Amino acid sequence: MKRSENQTARYDDRPIGVFDSGVGGLTVVKQLMKRLPQESIIYFGDTARIPYGTKSEKIVRRFALEDSFFLLDKGVKAIVVACNTASANAIPLLEKVLPVPVTGVIHPGAEAAVQRTRNGKIGVIGTAATIRSSTYRKEILRLQDGLQIVSQACPLFVPLVEEGWIEDEATYLIARRYLQPMIDNGVDTLILGCTHYPLLKNVIQKIVGPQVNLVDSGVETARVVEELLGEHHLFARPDHLPDHQFFLSDLPYKFQEIAERFLEQSIPHVQTVNFEQFLMEKGETFWKAYEEELAAFI
Amino acid sequence: MKRSENQTARYDDRPIGVFDSGVGGLTVVKQLMKRLPQESIIYFGDTARIPYGTKSEKIVRRFALEDSFFLLDKGVKAIVVACNTASANAIPLLEKVLPVPVTGVIHPGAEAAVQRTRNGKIGVIGTAATIRSSTYRKEILRLQDGLQIVSQACPLFVPLVEEGWIEDEATYLIARRYLQPMIDNGVDTLILGCTHYPLLKNVIQKIVGPQVNLVDSGVETARVVEELLGEHHLFARPDHLPDHQFFLSDLPYKFQEIAERFLEQSIPHVQTVNFEQFLMEKGETFWKAYEEELAAFI
Repeated sequence: MKRSENQTARYDDRPIGVFDSGVGGLTVVKQLMKRLPQESIIYFGDTARIPYGTKSEKIVRRFALEDSFFLLDKGVKAIVVACNTASANAIPLLEKVLPVPVTGVIHPGAEAAVQRTRNGKIGVIGTAATIRSSTYRKEILRLQDGLQIVSQACPLFVPLVEEGWIEDEATYLIARRYLQPMIDNGVDTLILGCTHYPLLKNVIQKIVGPQVNLVDSGVETARVVEELLGEHHLFARPDHLPDHQFFLSDLPYKFQEIAERFLEQSIPHVQTVNFEQFLMEKGETFWKAYEEELAAFI
Repeated sequence: MKRSENQTARYDDRPIGVFDSGVGGLTVVKQLMKRLPQESIIYFGDTARIPYGTKSEKIVRRFALEDSFFLLDKGVKAIVVACNTASANAIPLLEKVLPVPVTGVIHPGAEAAVQRTRNGKIGVIGTAATIRSSTYRKEILRLQDGLQIVSQACPLFVPLVEEGWIEDEATYLIARRYLQPMIDNGVDTLILGCTHYPLLKNVIQKIVGPQVNLVDSGVETARVVEELLGEHHLFARPDHLPDHQFFLSDLPYKFQEIAERFLEQSIPHVQTVNFEQFLMEKGETFWKAYEEELAAFI
């Protein structure tokens, strides 16, 4: 589809699909709603198969495809992979085989950090799985060689956020310990490399100091989604009233409470889907449709 | 097999099988080694499919069976389910269909608490999944009606233990918050209802006070295993030199370090197994062998 085709304004009111292994991707949804308020969003949280971070690359690629099939079946016009593990392992595959534009959360965050750093020292924090995979490091160095990268796994941040212990003495103590290497190494830009971490933004900013630029992958991903929609003439009409839908493959403990903290608004309608049944009924048709492209990846 | 058959001493040097969804079951292994030093142990940690706590009961029962098949294939003489979720969901099934004696961790812990409480007030701490399932509550009330049970989920304890932050300011802060309801309600007995928690025993004891009796499921489970081995004439020879083996379905982050902290000794030999391949090669044979008994459960 070439830009020159867009002589008259064209609109597409279909929803944007977003998936994550759990609830964290809702911080990306929040930024999408803020930046693109006319767009409908369909969210799928694969809570029955969480976490993805401990699974093999091959399994994560299969899960990412299956999650995408679910969203395509709901008629989405674009897919946002709001999960660091799936972004790290499945983006090339999804970009190649899916019939809609796709973005993950890693490239947008890495790109923003490379653009903003002045002293060439970038910090990355994330889950143990994300840090161990070195995905941010690789993506940053692919964008610009020679930058200094300081990485730190922060395994306690996710459970602290899910407990709702944000402006909390224990959280400050733990964050100070995790972030000390960032201060010691003088990073001027810090990537929040986990979709849960934007909820700790204030705590983190206070500890590393106001001179450090925090990169929120959700904000950067929403920016990239806007670019993609523009490029592919997929914006909803400016006066479109959005209709959001939230699907989960399992209803986890305290979901409503956690979700509303992540979204900073109430979630009207959460549907639990039998994902195994979806895959049994429709999985094969999707796999067959992409068989040829998939052969090289799976 | 009746006790009267045991006129002359009979011994069985085959190993005891222990499985868990991850590394926590090693605290049970530690107690088994302490109580039964002549017994060989084969440990299987299903780290590729962790956590079990968020999965449906049906899936957990299937996983528990498959884990047991793996141990039976290694020639074990008894099976210890060192995982709270699998114990809660699969013990009746495993007891019914497996050809060796089986115990979980919940019944031994609940039994010890009921025997030890003086004021009838028992506290239970565990993961969100364990507390939500009310398994300890049900088991305690089944053993003795009318006891008062105070339950508290402590989701930060597992990541704190895995970080190795034990005698730590943050850990004390967090533990004080979680344990306040135990103090307020005056429990005199507290079940550590998660295999990770024995590592926090000192911290917990300091906070609730020396008058509270802490029940370590690992210690109680080792006691029950000793009873089972005696009952079924399965003790290893008193001079038997044990040979322990550790299998994992995936090698997680910092496993060696965490495992040695749990066991309080070095782990000589950890083998990562391709569990999917095991199931493909041998799963069907096992399933067929138990088909009839399984029909009622699965």
